[in-house]
Amino acid sequence: MIKVSVVGAQGRMGSHVVDAVNAASDAELALALDAGDDLTAITPENTDVVVEFTVPSVTLGNVLTLIAQGVDVVVGTTGWTDEKLDAVRAALAQAPREGQSVFIAPNFAISAVLADYFARLAAPYFESAEVIELHHPDKVDAPSGTAIHTAQGIGAARAKAGLGAVPDNTQTDGGSRGQVVDGVHVHAVRLRGLNAHEEVLFGNAGEQLVIRADSFDRGSFMPGVLLAVRKVASGEFPGLTVGLDHFLDL
Amino acid sequence: MIKVSVVGAQGRMGSHVVDAVNAASDAELALALDAGDDLTAITPENTDVVVEFTVPSVTLGNVLTLIAQGVDVVVGTTGWTDEKLDAVRAALAQAPREGQSVFIAPNFAISAVLADYFARLAAPYFESAEVIELHHPDKVDAPSGTAIHTAQGIGAARAKAGLGAVPDNTQTDGGSRGQVVDGVHVHAVRLRGLNAHEEVLFGNAGEQLVIRADSFDRGSFMPGVLLAVRKVASGEFPGLTVGLDHFLDL
Amino acid sequence: MIKVSVVGAQGRMGSHVVDAVNAASDAELALALDAGDDLTAITPENTDVVVEFTVPSVTLGNVLTLIAQGVDVVVGTTGWTDEKLDAVRAALAQAPREGQSVFIAPNFAISAVLADYFARLAAPYFESAEVIELHHPDKVDAPSGTAIHTAQGIGAARAKAGLGAVPDNTQTDGGSRGQVVDGVHVHAVRLRGLNAHEEVLFGNAGEQLVIRADSFDRGSFMPGVLLAVRKVASGEFPGLTVGLDHFLDL
Amino acid sequence: MIKVSVVGAQGRMGSHVVDAVNAASDAELALALDAGDDLTAITPENTDVVVEFTVPSVTLGNVLTLIAQGVDVVVGTTGWTDEKLDAVRAALAQAPREGQSVFIAPNFAISAVLADYFARLAAPYFESAEVIELHHPDKVDAPSGTAIHTAQGIGAARAKAGLGAVPDNTQTDGGSRGQVVDGVHVHAVRLRGLNAHEEVLFGNAGEQLVIRADSFDRGSFMPGVLLAVRKVASGEFPGLTVGLDHFLDL
Repeated sequence: MIKVSVVGAQGRMGSHVVDAVNAASDAELALALDAGDDLTAITPENTDVVVEFTVPSVTLGNVLTLIAQGVDVVVGTTGWTDEKLDAVRAALAQAPREGQSVFIAPNFAISAVLADYFARLAAPYFESAEVIELHHPDKVDAPSGTAIHTAQGIGAARAKAGLGAVPDNTQTDGGSRGQVVDGVHVHAVRLRGLNAHEEVLFGNAGEQLVIRADSFDRGSFMPGVLLAVRKVASGEFPGLTVGLDHFLDL
Repeated sequence: MIKVSVVGAQGRMGSHVVDAVNAASDAELALALDAGDDLTAITPENTDVVVEFTVPSVTLGNVLTLIAQGVDVVVGTTGWTDEKLDAVRAALAQAPREGQSVFIAPNFAISAVLADYFARLAAPYFESAEVIELHHPDKVDAPSGTAIHTAQGIGAARAKAGLGAVPDNTQTDGGSRGQVVDGVHVHAVRLRGLNAHEEVLFGNAGEQLVIRADSFDRGSFMPGVLLAVRKVASGEFPGLTVGLDHFLDL
Repeated sequence: MIKVSVVGAQGRMGSHVVDAVNAASDAELALALDAGDDLTAITPENTDVVVEFTVPSVTLGNVLTLIAQGVDVVVGTTGWTDEKLDAVRAALAQAPREGQSVFIAPNFAISAVLADYFARLAAPYFESAEVIELHHPDKVDAPSGTAIHTAQGIGAARAKAGLGAVPDNTQTDGGSRGQVVDGVHVHAVRLRGLNAHEEVLFGNAGEQLVIRADSFDRGSFMPGVLLAVRKVASGEFPGLTVGLDHFLDL
Repeated sequence: MIKVSVVGAQGRMGSHVVDAVNAASDAELALALDAGDDLTAITPENTDVVVEFTVPSVTLGNVLTLIAQGVDVVVGTTGWTDEKLDAVRAALAQAPREGQSVFIAPNFAISAVLADYFARLAAPYFESAEVIELHHPDKVDAPSGTAIHTAQGIGAARAKAGLGAVPDNTQTDGGSRGQVVDGVHVHAVRLRGLNAHEEVLFGNAGEQLVIRADSFDRGSFMPGVLLAVRKVASGEFPGLTVGLDHFLDL
């Protein structure tokens, strides 16, 4: 049994993680902590892996503390920059236990991770590519971080393949052509009833490839969180790993 | 047999009309004219209905000439304004033959016309509504005239039903939320391989309604053109009629 | 305020209705009854409208009892036959209060009701039509009652329009062409993650019309239930009404 | 310049190949042969690569003749069995020129090939998987060979990953659940206006992944044919290669 502690256990995502750990046959809940609790209560004796779902302003501090405590960490909080990731790498280099792991993922939905991965693979083979993300209307940012990541991946793959700009003879535009991210047009739909969805369209003369990921509710993230917990607990991924695609056999 | 003359017969659309008339069992081709030809060769003796597919700069003049010739006209050319429509109405009021008809449609694809009509019907029942149009990358305007028309219809139906603005808590936007037409966000995708497509999304808590029209090629307009020819030839629609939905039994 | 009693208040749907009534600004919960409770506790003094969500084996008896009690009823239970509907009509003819109403709907999701209605309207204008329904894998029947209803509506509309059979030159088939309902091929997908979805495809040469209704959770039925409660309470629909489309301004 | 001869040059596909070769900047048409022509006119002196699009009854004979002539062959004709492929391998082992290549592909549309490949990659990560193929109504077989191939790939990937049967509690079925291929339900839609389309649906609790390939016309196959011609001409793929995915950098 993998002993899992949860930091941010009363949050929207954290409470789902607690339920998912309790429901898993190969994991058991150790500590469930939230804001104000002392993270040093988490030790290698009571915990194998910590799952951290808090807020961008505190997550780096939490992770550094947990590294110093000698435990592995799976992080679902967003807002990571290259500087913050470097701080994690530096801390891991001086971690008390050999082979300690930190795993950070911007998205734990397997469908979204696969869509993003397939989009990068497909990008070199199509003249055109656009991204449409669709979310509930209470989401405050647009486009979504996932859509930006997908567009960046497509843009990089096109550049590597020597493709030029996507064909687009539109001469006038009052905004309908969306936001251009690394040469890829990204559209954001906000619609009551939806949760989190992404559609990637690729086109050549006479053909289209569509890759769509639908996340209907937060429960969709739990298989990905449990997969990360198991991979981190296996000890096969020492150091910092970013992105759930590293844990899929692709 | 309905005797059909075609003006703009060598154009992209007009040549399809010639083929469609030749293939129809209840219509036969009378005159096939193009730029430079004398429209007064068209008379009630040789022609029941004229199909006019030319360019915005000449269509009004053509239609006025054809009204004076005493024949009914089906117009597929775009670019009509309220002023131009009024000029057609005035000419029809003094037409040489009683009950003369002019029919003008911005879109002859039955799927697109139905999608537009259904969108207006559905609009009062949903909190959210957005429009995505998708076209080949050589189209120069965005969003499409059809998408603007659909968004205007949704906006008017929402207003009539007393609905407020669509819910949207997006705080930052680099353009991904599209162009707002009468309160409805409209997105334009340009993708090689596509022709002309429109998708209307409606959302309430827990549910979504999607209406999508795909026009894969210009042949998709011909059933609508022939329907218009038959309706105009029936004599049941004297005066000016705008929009193919008037000829559908909805 | 409309006084609403709920029969089947502890069931999956009934408990949502209780919540929806409590949340509505123009309705208030009167009695919440379930199996074993005495329905004669419901009277015109304490209740304007009863919402009945139970099981097919008891719903007719419940409705007859409630009619005799002099209250209006909105029924969401399925399994109604022509014989059962006739029994309701007969009881209403002898109801104690003038203008008493019973409303029965096979589906309260507005998106699904509109999709079904639009499919009937569109059917006369297309050579081809097929229906795909998609549900969670725990649904025991296939195709769904909604999909059968939609296919029947398309079949009737095609027959009325004088359309022949859909074109289909498939010579061999191991079952992939689906179940044929009134001449319309119906396909049933069962997929974890989905709830209740229906897609209707119409095709002509060069064009396609797609109408899709997604019900992501049971909450999607509540706007329709509340609409029905309000319409029944208005007194404008005496007698038996079947189908939510009668309450939409289409 | 790659010298390309076409066998079946007057056929539906072959005539497109002739056009595509003429339009390519790095290829030129050598011989264009059809039924009744003598294939031994094709020699290494006048031809680098032959593209063969004929019919299943003659393709094996054509390929064996062309191997004996010492030229490389790209084959788009369908109907290949393991026995026929073995015959090609045996002939290649005794080919007159060292490193001679034969490439056979059931599908040259890059979108379809990628969809099939991505479906195999994604399959281990989802509880549910179903395939819907959609074609014009003049297609005589159902489901399509591409859909069967995709379903077989998903079934094999599920078996390798130790997944059991897809969840499905449907108790009654009049055919709506489709044809089961290696444990995967496959549905075939026939709709006027469509050409060749495939949609693969994957589901987990709370999430869905959809991969869709649309081939709108035969021109969609030409980029894949030219890619195959270039790869075969490169000399890097001696012997028999089956499937365009071998020529994509995945």
